[in-house]
Amino acid sequence: MKIGILGTGMVAQALAAKLSAIGHQIMIGTRDVDKTMERSETDAYGNPPFSEWRENHSKVKLENFSDAAAFGEVVINATSGGASLMALQMAGHDHLKGKILIDVANPLDFSEGMPPTLLVCNSDSLAEQIQRTLPDTKVVKTLNTLNAHLMVDPNKVGKGDHHIFVSGNDQAAKDKVVGYLKDWFGWKHIIDLGDISTARGTEMLMPIWVRLMGKLGTPMFNFKIVQ
Amino acid sequence: MKIGILGTGMVAQALAAKLSAIGHQIMIGTRDVDKTMERSETDAYGNPPFSEWRENHSKVKLENFSDAAAFGEVVINATSGGASLMALQMAGHDHLKGKILIDVANPLDFSEGMPPTLLVCNSDSLAEQIQRTLPDTKVVKTLNTLNAHLMVDPNKVGKGDHHIFVSGNDQAAKDKVVGYLKDWFGWKHIIDLGDISTARGTEMLMPIWVRLMGKLGTPMFNFKIVQ
Repeated sequence: MKIGILGTGMVAQALAAKLSAIGHQIMIGTRDVDKTMERSETDAYGNPPFSEWRENHSKVKLENFSDAAAFGEVVINATSGGASLMALQMAGHDHLKGKILIDVANPLDFSEGMPPTLLVCNSDSLAEQIQRTLPDTKVVKTLNTLNAHLMVDPNKVGKGDHHIFVSGNDQAAKDKVVGYLKDWFGWKHIIDLGDISTARGTEMLMPIWVRLMGKLGTPMFNFKIVQ
Repeated sequence: MKIGILGTGMVAQALAAKLSAIGHQIMIGTRDVDKTMERSETDAYGNPPFSEWRENHSKVKLENFSDAAAFGEVVINATSGGASLMALQMAGHDHLKGKILIDVANPLDFSEGMPPTLLVCNSDSLAEQIQRTLPDTKVVKTLNTLNAHLMVDPNKVGKGDHHIFVSGNDQAAKDKVVGYLKDWFGWKHIIDLGDISTARGTEMLMPIWVRLMGKLGTPMFNFKIVQ
């Protein structure tokens, strides 16, 4: 399948690497290809620059947001939450029309340092903002509640016995995404929370997630719903 | 131990019943004892009125907020979150001075119907508001992430293999509360998240909790952190 991934950070890289490895055609979209390739510093988490990652993933294409959105049969928003709406604007609403947009971003605000707060929450969410901005796109929120390495390999902790969630207004689109999550990454436990407004719940998991990461000293953990 | 419990709802009842059953002296505090005993309607969740509960728990004392706060060596805030600051005002700050206040409330706002939003979140929390209001009291936030019946009996789901959290500025007070949670209710998995501001994380779990309750059709579930 042709998949467009918006964003060049560690989440986009983890998704692109895995999806490319299992045989999908991947195009990553960025604001400015030259600038992305010129960057030589590590990111805030100490990850190497994109160009270095690219050397080991030469099958993954890198173009601008618009090209990647047009390329993908399915498009994934893996930009940082604060930049998502602008990135989707640059991607071109027409390129996303009728398509599934898998939104894995969180609206984290690091402007006041650590731990981050949320740019939007409680009576709204980033996923709802995106769905309102793209009324003809089927936005499905998922995978935003855990670390990128776990997103693509749930068996890395607890033998995969933990949960992720999906939120979205289009049931058929959500069902397709649930299928992708199983096929692509091996997810076994996926809870369909309901319409896109239920993404408020998953985005608002971030405040405890960042504190747990600090406490546990690792981002390699996930939530399991025990009944 | 003498324990004061502020609030007469289902959370206060569950805590009072359990703590009384294991031999503690319990005084529940309410705004107006006569009005509490006169109430004859079920609550929003279909629970019977307090007077009916009281018939089966006659050892539990019922007095006003002030009496219950003065009575308790440890005091538990189990009022509804929107009323907590007023209840603590009526309880009398002097009656809470130097004591541990276990805060199990959530600042839920039902004014716009279901699902509720939060009255405070993101850059503040109810627990922090309470700690600022009561600077000489050791506020420890805990148990606010699950149903009342599970609070007092974690083995009711998953053989108790799931987590609760504590937040607070006073390490000795938190350690004592962790001991209480183990001794009183049998909690095995308790994560100390850090200072009182980490209660933002647990209070912000409510939005996904209420949606999970709707989806699963039961409040009898809890979060497990899988590593």
